[in-house]
Amino acid sequence: MPESNEVALIVGGGPGISASCARLFADEGMRVAVAARNPDKPVLEKLEQTHHIRRYACDASDPAAVVALFQKVAADLGAPRLVVHNIDGRVPGIFRKGIAEADPGMVLDTLRNSSFSAFLVAQQATRLMLTNAPGRNGAKGTIIFTNASAAIKGYVKSGAFAMASHAKLGLAESMARELMPEGIHVVHVPIDAAIGWTHEDGTRAHRLAGTTVDDNMADPDYIAQAYLQLHRQHRSTWAFEVVLRPWVEKL
Amino acid sequence: MPESNEVALIVGGGPGISASCARLFADEGMRVAVAARNPDKPVLEKLEQTHHIRRYACDASDPAAVVALFQKVAADLGAPRLVVHNIDGRVPGIFRKGIAEADPGMVLDTLRNSSFSAFLVAQQATRLMLTNAPGRNGAKGTIIFTNASAAIKGYVKSGAFAMASHAKLGLAESMARELMPEGIHVVHVPIDAAIGWTHEDGTRAHRLAGTTVDDNMADPDYIAQAYLQLHRQHRSTWAFEVVLRPWVEKL
Amino acid sequence: MPESNEVALIVGGGPGISASCARLFADEGMRVAVAARNPDKPVLEKLEQTHHIRRYACDASDPAAVVALFQKVAADLGAPRLVVHNIDGRVPGIFRKGIAEADPGMVLDTLRNSSFSAFLVAQQATRLMLTNAPGRNGAKGTIIFTNASAAIKGYVKSGAFAMASHAKLGLAESMARELMPEGIHVVHVPIDAAIGWTHEDGTRAHRLAGTTVDDNMADPDYIAQAYLQLHRQHRSTWAFEVVLRPWVEKL
Amino acid sequence: MPESNEVALIVGGGPGISASCARLFADEGMRVAVAARNPDKPVLEKLEQTHHIRRYACDASDPAAVVALFQKVAADLGAPRLVVHNIDGRVPGIFRKGIAEADPGMVLDTLRNSSFSAFLVAQQATRLMLTNAPGRNGAKGTIIFTNASAAIKGYVKSGAFAMASHAKLGLAESMARELMPEGIHVVHVPIDAAIGWTHEDGTRAHRLAGTTVDDNMADPDYIAQAYLQLHRQHRSTWAFEVVLRPWVEKL
Repeated sequence: MPESNEVALIVGGGPGISASCARLFADEGMRVAVAARNPDKPVLEKLEQTHHIRRYACDASDPAAVVALFQKVAADLGAPRLVVHNIDGRVPGIFRKGIAEADPGMVLDTLRNSSFSAFLVAQQATRLMLTNAPGRNGAKGTIIFTNASAAIKGYVKSGAFAMASHAKLGLAESMARELMPEGIHVVHVPIDAAIGWTHEDGTRAHRLAGTTVDDNMADPDYIAQAYLQLHRQHRSTWAFEVVLRPWVEKL
Repeated sequence: MPESNEVALIVGGGPGISASCARLFADEGMRVAVAARNPDKPVLEKLEQTHHIRRYACDASDPAAVVALFQKVAADLGAPRLVVHNIDGRVPGIFRKGIAEADPGMVLDTLRNSSFSAFLVAQQATRLMLTNAPGRNGAKGTIIFTNASAAIKGYVKSGAFAMASHAKLGLAESMARELMPEGIHVVHVPIDAAIGWTHEDGTRAHRLAGTTVDDNMADPDYIAQAYLQLHRQHRSTWAFEVVLRPWVEKL
Repeated sequence: MPESNEVALIVGGGPGISASCARLFADEGMRVAVAARNPDKPVLEKLEQTHHIRRYACDASDPAAVVALFQKVAADLGAPRLVVHNIDGRVPGIFRKGIAEADPGMVLDTLRNSSFSAFLVAQQATRLMLTNAPGRNGAKGTIIFTNASAAIKGYVKSGAFAMASHAKLGLAESMARELMPEGIHVVHVPIDAAIGWTHEDGTRAHRLAGTTVDDNMADPDYIAQAYLQLHRQHRSTWAFEVVLRPWVEKL
Repeated sequence: MPESNEVALIVGGGPGISASCARLFADEGMRVAVAARNPDKPVLEKLEQTHHIRRYACDASDPAAVVALFQKVAADLGAPRLVVHNIDGRVPGIFRKGIAEADPGMVLDTLRNSSFSAFLVAQQATRLMLTNAPGRNGAKGTIIFTNASAAIKGYVKSGAFAMASHAKLGLAESMARELMPEGIHVVHVPIDAAIGWTHEDGTRAHRLAGTTVDDNMADPDYIAQAYLQLHRQHRSTWAFEVVLRPWVEKL
């Protein structure tokens, strides 16, 4: 069922889900673009060498920057058929801050980095995808929002992140209702776990420090695989939301 | 069970829920403050005359203005035991705009007006309430977030409002988990309907223009009554969320 | 807003929610019927003396018995305007039984006692209420389903109860969509807590053995109060579901 | 990642999802058993010839029959690693019956056919799977519950089916919490659509009579594919629930 030469754009450039997606999508024959605030991170430079990904600098919370990103990607590679928004967006200073303590400026920045950037990316993706012809699965394109379990449950001392994660869910729901009948597959994927990554030396971190339980972090290679399967789902049976969690995670 | 002389602060000053709450809370013996961008609206001036409410000017999306509001209310009336966040926050220009068309600046303004203002108000309310002694119902205070059904379902051509409404829900959930064990009752009330109001001449608008069905708009006097009951709920049996809808509304 | 002489029927006759409802409804001027497998329990005999309730014997999982119950209540007191289904239905032998261990016969009995009895009671209540004239709140009647938090979350080693509680929610949801536009207020109330009760000597049990935390069991007098408020809600703003939990309960 | 010679048991033998699953699982090298009340239906006889499936007669609402089924399958083919419960269970006489009209006996039969049979099948599957060694994906087995959108929304004039579908969800949730940490992947799949099937002559029915819109019924071949992917998910990232709906279905 795979299309050849599809263009995939991953917004967010970390060593976890973004890197795993870039590798898998390239291995499947897609032309892959990765956008990050700092595209010169070693993980992305290495992916350029090993998987021929294209790197783009973009502050995804800046409307003009997001417009420019999609224009460049479209000019360089063509209109994307798969766009993944993969930005957590938390300002570190708000971690574990109770409602009475959280800094308002950091709260607004978290909303901007996470939810507003999701809107900006989704808007540009939508505009381009609506002009695509349907592919073999009947879709003009797929937009995947990586999210946290904070999207479905507001945790203690995590108000700003709960706001931002819920907002991303709200956006995805509204878009799904609006765009699925137009042929764009919108998917919301809350990951209910810490996410592992691959070290520079190729070893993997899927284990919490000091624990002996395996698999207590989600392996991003399997997340990437789930995204690929979602992208290839036929429009006869589209999933809007898939919550992914390790077997040992409390449901 | 009512306390005498409790202080209630209503943020948002429209002729619907805010006005009905102000009337009811005052009739129940509370000292009522209403904050609005423009506190000189006729509906508020009239409430000052008839129900002795205090009016305050406040842009609730401005951190410093919200701090100042709570300081003034506390100085004038005392620390509030009941705070209602009653701001819709939609910028008119985004109504019925599809994801491809919505203006990014208006999307961010909607997030700021609705969700960020909810955070700012909730933060100041929390700080003051934590210092209250428990009342007869065992609570140090009640914080009620009025919301829309967009908080629980993202509608078509309504992405920005879905984001803002979901964010408000996420904030409320996180706060409920954090603050209920501290004695603050946090409640999220999505109203699944258009909301009626009272005209200047005292007549009511609870009917959509051109319809003959009665009660197809929610009567804000009954919403105010529900808020009062929620405020007085004993901490032995607190509700976190109540969705209110007219009997003829599609569930 | 209260109607005088309304008839209330409570199905289930325990010393917790049922007894508290019976007392409160009678104190509010309603004529109260309580149905139980064994109507000769001391708690019900006492309520007959102190609050003039009528006691009825009924196995609510038996279709013919439920038909007979409603006929008798209607003949004795009139058509009920408020019916509360207040049956837990768990067969004790399935408590804390894992999926591999639970006895199939007990699982089916739990479904029958809880969900099927809810259907039978709701069916008869619906038939009678549809013939009522609307009351002051615009309703022909109110049907309240007491449920457990197992209705919204399936717990470990609790499969049969999860099935039964979810089924009751499904019934309530379908009925709400069908009957609210007909003027019958359908309400689903999961109680997310152990529920206290009143001892024979009048002392109350709202505290788990061995704990010092107050209010860690839901006080059924406050639950009854919530039911009364729900019953009196105007049809302009009906709540379908209210989850009640003590302030110290984990959300 | 596929295991060779895995045993799959499909309970329910219709020409839609069950037949599509049987074909796909057999094509992937699994040994496939299909259980149905009437195993002599042409669709199953044909699958025996073309895909070497084994056919078993079983009334899945009969505890002894379900025990016997699993014993026979285990003896004939080995312990299953994949079990699909694929029974709708509605008694035709309750279709479109309002709460006041539904026949109580048919309501109980629907609960028994759908939810109770799901429990019986899940219990036997669990007992066998717990003795399996983990496979390449880290799982001892996968149990998939096909369900309807009535599991997540109770529709009008559909109370019995809402009860049965919700009960199945409750069972799945409880089992997921209990069994995932034991290595059994439990998945709940509500299909939010009418489901197509393949006619005897090989043509497909994925279109509602009288419509011109393509894909307005879910294609069971794609549902089967989703089930296979879920079965092969690594335990690092398990999905508990996937709602599948056609692109044109109202979300």
